Amino acid sequence: MATRRFRTDNRAVDALYDRLSATDLQPLWELTGLLTPEPVVGAVPYRWSGEDLRALGEASGELVPVERGGDRRVLACCNPGLDGAPYAVPTLWAAVQYLRAGEVAPAHRHTPAALRFITQGQGVWTLVDGDPVHMSEGDLVLTPSWTFHEHHNPSSEAMTWMDVLDLPIVAALGAVFFEDGPTDEASTATAPRSMSESWYGGGPGLVPVAGPSAPGSRSPLLAYRWADTDRALATQLKASGRGVAVIRFADPVRGGDVMPTLRCEMHRVESGRRTDRTRQTGGRVACILHGTGSIAIGGETFDIGPGDILAIPSWSPWDVQAETELDLFSTSDAPVLEALGLMRHDAVDAADLVAVP
Amino acid sequence: MATRRFRTDNRAVDALYDRLSATDLQPLWELTGLLTPEPVVGAVPYRWSGEDLRALGEASGELVPVERGGDRRVLACCNPGLDGAPYAVPTLWAAVQYLRAGEVAPAHRHTPAALRFITQGQGVWTLVDGDPVHMSEGDLVLTPSWTFHEHHNPSSEAMTWMDVLDLPIVAALGAVFFEDGPTDEASTATAPRSMSESWYGGGPGLVPVAGPSAPGSRSPLLAYRWADTDRALATQLKASGRGVAVIRFADPVRGGDVMPTLRCEMHRVESGRRTDRTRQTGGRVACILHGTGSIAIGGETFDIGPGDILAIPSWSPWDVQAETELDLFSTSDAPVLEALGLMRHDAVDAADLVAVP
Amino acid sequence: MATRRFRTDNRAVDALYDRLSATDLQPLWELTGLLTPEPVVGAVPYRWSGEDLRALGEASGELVPVERGGDRRVLACCNPGLDGAPYAVPTLWAAVQYLRAGEVAPAHRHTPAALRFITQGQGVWTLVDGDPVHMSEGDLVLTPSWTFHEHHNPSSEAMTWMDVLDLPIVAALGAVFFEDGPTDEASTATAPRSMSESWYGGGPGLVPVAGPSAPGSRSPLLAYRWADTDRALATQLKASGRGVAVIRFADPVRGGDVMPTLRCEMHRVESGRRTDRTRQTGGRVACILHGTGSIAIGGETFDIGPGDILAIPSWSPWDVQAETELDLFSTSDAPVLEALGLMRHDAVDAADLVAVP
Amino acid sequence: MATRRFRTDNRAVDALYDRLSATDLQPLWELTGLLTPEPVVGAVPYRWSGEDLRALGEASGELVPVERGGDRRVLACCNPGLDGAPYAVPTLWAAVQYLRAGEVAPAHRHTPAALRFITQGQGVWTLVDGDPVHMSEGDLVLTPSWTFHEHHNPSSEAMTWMDVLDLPIVAALGAVFFEDGPTDEASTATAPRSMSESWYGGGPGLVPVAGPSAPGSRSPLLAYRWADTDRALATQLKASGRGVAVIRFADPVRGGDVMPTLRCEMHRVESGRRTDRTRQTGGRVACILHGTGSIAIGGETFDIGPGDILAIPSWSPWDVQAETELDLFSTSDAPVLEALGLMRHDAVDAADLVAVP
Repeated sequence: MATRRFRTDNRAVDALYDRLSATDLQPLWELTGLLTPEPVVGAVPYRWSGEDLRALGEASGELVPVERGGDRRVLACCNPGLDGAPYAVPTLWAAVQYLRAGEVAPAHRHTPAALRFITQGQGVWTLVDGDPVHMSEGDLVLTPSWTFHEHHNPSSEAMTWMDVLDLPIVAALGAVFFEDGPTDEASTATAPRSMSESWYGGGPGLVPVAGPSAPGSRSPLLAYRWADTDRALATQLKASGRGVAVIRFADPVRGGDVMPTLRCEMHRVESGRRTDRTRQTGGRVACILHGTGSIAIGGETFDIGPGDILAIPSWSPWDVQAETELDLFSTSDAPVLEALGLMRHDAVDAADLVAVP
Repeated sequence: MATRRFRTDNRAVDALYDRLSATDLQPLWELTGLLTPEPVVGAVPYRWSGEDLRALGEASGELVPVERGGDRRVLACCNPGLDGAPYAVPTLWAAVQYLRAGEVAPAHRHTPAALRFITQGQGVWTLVDGDPVHMSEGDLVLTPSWTFHEHHNPSSEAMTWMDVLDLPIVAALGAVFFEDGPTDEASTATAPRSMSESWYGGGPGLVPVAGPSAPGSRSPLLAYRWADTDRALATQLKASGRGVAVIRFADPVRGGDVMPTLRCEMHRVESGRRTDRTRQTGGRVACILHGTGSIAIGGETFDIGPGDILAIPSWSPWDVQAETELDLFSTSDAPVLEALGLMRHDAVDAADLVAVP
Repeated sequence: MATRRFRTDNRAVDALYDRLSATDLQPLWELTGLLTPEPVVGAVPYRWSGEDLRALGEASGELVPVERGGDRRVLACCNPGLDGAPYAVPTLWAAVQYLRAGEVAPAHRHTPAALRFITQGQGVWTLVDGDPVHMSEGDLVLTPSWTFHEHHNPSSEAMTWMDVLDLPIVAALGAVFFEDGPTDEASTATAPRSMSESWYGGGPGLVPVAGPSAPGSRSPLLAYRWADTDRALATQLKASGRGVAVIRFADPVRGGDVMPTLRCEMHRVESGRRTDRTRQTGGRVACILHGTGSIAIGGETFDIGPGDILAIPSWSPWDVQAETELDLFSTSDAPVLEALGLMRHDAVDAADLVAVP
Repeated sequence: MATRRFRTDNRAVDALYDRLSATDLQPLWELTGLLTPEPVVGAVPYRWSGEDLRALGEASGELVPVERGGDRRVLACCNPGLDGAPYAVPTLWAAVQYLRAGEVAPAHRHTPAALRFITQGQGVWTLVDGDPVHMSEGDLVLTPSWTFHEHHNPSSEAMTWMDVLDLPIVAALGAVFFEDGPTDEASTATAPRSMSESWYGGGPGLVPVAGPSAPGSRSPLLAYRWADTDRALATQLKASGRGVAVIRFADPVRGGDVMPTLRCEMHRVESGRRTDRTRQTGGRVACILHGTGSIAIGGETFDIGPGDILAIPSWSPWDVQAETELDLFSTSDAPVLEALGLMRHDAVDAADLVAVP
């Protein structure tokens, strides 16, 4: 494609602009919108309804075999502000995956990191580098960068869940690698408890001296179970007395975030409470686990209920109003912004807060 | 813009696809090119000729006042593979800036970090947060994220240099902020030696116990002078006996790269030598300071000479053949790839190498 | 004290030695034992019997009021190899503390960090910066450097536990500070669950986004409960299949050790099993929680049972033979050795181990 | 040695104390001086006169061959407060070494790290892992932990310099290892410039992309030359306008201190100036390179001149009064105190200071 040619009402300048275009150069002074006073992002505040997602997952399940195209039956959330790119916000892929009773999705691996958050149901196992991790409502399951993963559903019910990947980030950096699994056959192994959890899920601050290795800067703990998360939220809610509790999912061995590109949190808001309105740089995807209420993002307000997926663009202020007690899962690119010195957030009363490392 | 609608030859599937589109969802199995075996990037190997850049800078200088549009007279290198985006590679802005005798460019600051590399001439001062940093051939000058900077040319000659910014990265993360300087008047202060260098440029491994602060993870040393770089290259060339010397510009206080998003290096290749052919994830921009020869990038080969700017896309192998002794400045997004666990490079004989921290 | 004067059979050399002594110099060539092929430490392998410790605690309780001298009723383990210094190994203070029903020990704080490990009983609260932490069998409780701490026993039973401090290290570095609490009255506050645990004890890898601050590099979680530790050991024992499980107590937010100077671990050895024989630089104190068997340290072997405290000097190989299932608490100065690049340990088959960060 | 037995005027208590002693326990409440309000250290402020050190080095040179005892002709500074221990302060060994014309001292290595600071003369080469490093007035030369080192003096003049080791720290941690060099013959290799400097001494912030490895957390640059240090001090003195300049010797690749246990600095004080009076935890050894004046340490004041070695104990306030321009080399255990969270220093106006990383 030819480099863009600018036009003015001055022939000499136009001649210069022709030369620039021919040499694949552009005059900065004609480019607008590059350096804006505040972040300007195409992505808009958006909600995908949990009901729609379940219904369309089911419809896809009836029409589309899981083998067809790309190993997975996945519906990608496309933010309407992103010109058709299949991303929920510019840095995050969010999607629902649907697996029918008895189906299997074969193993592959890729450098983009993925996480699964389960809003409903249970019965599927995800194998991460061969370790069978059961998936159930409220669980967070990781498939870190370059780990082989496959899914199988030995239960009698179809199951759906949310996938989030850092794919746009990895693609923007020119670092996407993909590889099929060693065999075309999905493993159908199961286990009541994954090896990952047997080693690293012992309890708060308890880590094995010698466990299976987790290369790179990512958590060796691959599943964070709802029973634990629920208890932690309830305890914190009581301790804080603020009507809001937020926990961050952390690498139990090295501290820090579960994966180098993704921060995961669970927010609980008591019935009748509204959270503080805050904003920060970087994109966020939220998913409602339990409860109803509304979320205000930028200038938009959406009613929310179980299974809804929400896009919160960079620098958009947001807050949540809980009608009934709300559990909201959040994932964002915050570790990237922090690593690069680009995180900004609204001032909060931080005097008694401990910094995330 | 409406979410893309896919079409098949099956009416039931088409009806599903209509529903998906209406709900801002896309079926993964119809999306291709997302997860590729190896990085696929639009950017192509490319060269902008130093002669062209100088000539067009000069022509712009005659026609376009520096006040006109965006504070700066800058020509942006547009990689022909990037659909008109004004970027040399997907993650890096590269451009030439041209300042005539007596001109001034007023102060502003932005979250994208910038560096200047000077291929020819001297006489301009860049003020970084008020500290006057003289610019001369072979120097590397930093204007880190969110530092005010302005330029003025009190000399009798026009001057040109290369700018590189991490703008595409910061924009992709929704983290661009911009602010005009406190006054519209550019300062015309000069100094034989910047304060930054007086404090932090003392010598190898010599840092002040108490110097002016450098918030964030970036170098407090703002200028790396050619006399030092030249001597370091000459000494290393002799010590290595390999015909190639490469130095990395480092933060003298904290170690690591000069800025959290940009790695800067200078490569010297002896006359008649060819470098090893290597590749890595992430984009690179190179600029020839001295010497002639050729560079092979992916399947392309370009003759190179002083002032040339080169785009080396992610995962493209490259090597340099020196006709006369070559000094090549390189800048890349390697710190980003490393921070996110996404750096891959060709195996090299690393037994006797010290890892970059 | 005058500087030591060396003597030879050479009058000229003797005259030189006199001059050296008068000038507070010593001739290296007369000093022996400074640079030894392997570590030579005075401390000897040693065991303090749990029965003795309990009996003597009780006897002290009858004779010595808790107010008498230094706020605490504490018996310090004195390694017989350390010339009367009240230390279990050269770098660690270990002691038993005894608190009778109804007694209180008032608040103070000091830069040496302390931990409590409870081998028997329950009913005492330790207040750490005002937060009441209940103590019960098998629990590990931290009182990090410079936190106020006080103890009170509202129960009807006396209670005893082990204290370990990094006092010798802090003293060697000339960094001991001490301060009495704000009042002479010990607080008798209690709580079913400490605030520390409400915020930071949620579960494996679950940390609050905004909890009470923990300045410095130490865990904000102040208590590690036996129920969690027991479960983690049992799960790991099953997963490993090796008859031995070892967990490390970690900072749940930042990863790494609970305090900058002390590493804490719990070892479980199945009945009939013997652990590998290993050694490492730095001192270690162990304490038997449950079970019987024997421990071989250097050339010594000791029968072990509940409540026993053991000194494992630097570089002494040790292993444990379990007669019945053994739970052994271990604390060492390993973080210090690692921070200073001085950790050495016997090679083990580390191919499948994850490094402690 | 038997554990100390305490005595009271109460027979029952005495009986208890007998039992404690027999069981190798000591009652905390009889131990005093363990937890002091502020650091109490045996070491006293002290000065070893440069004239004495040179004279006694020379006298030793005449009487004692370098082969005799321990490979080195070294006179250790014994702080009179340390009960005859051959240490300048509790954590640091300081000494003068004397090598006559033509002498050689054979290779060995040890885990204690060493540095050499040269106050006068030149002509000796220290080989560090085989790399010949010339020593000259004002230079700082490192022999990091576990590097082989040997010295030879091919010149026609004897030479003396100061050695500082972290030996007391390494010994306290039970981590002393020692090994003779591969041969008994000292190498007499020389080189105008060490390989270490050819690779890592290029200039401020200039590091090789691939240089010889430096395992562990220590500087790969082994010599800091006076010409560089002098220039850095002069430039900083002018920039600061405070009459005092202080540079820290840093690892050019990783930032931070030259070795994990030792911080090295050079202080320049203008003629007629007095430095601020400060104190910090941890011990310090200073050595006068140039100039005269006085130093006040705690309650003592010493006249100072070239070659003097000074002991500055932990928490002792100190300041320097320059009669003529003073250059003072300082080394301390500050990295240890910082790593362990034990560093305290007097508040200074730190608003515009950059923290040491």
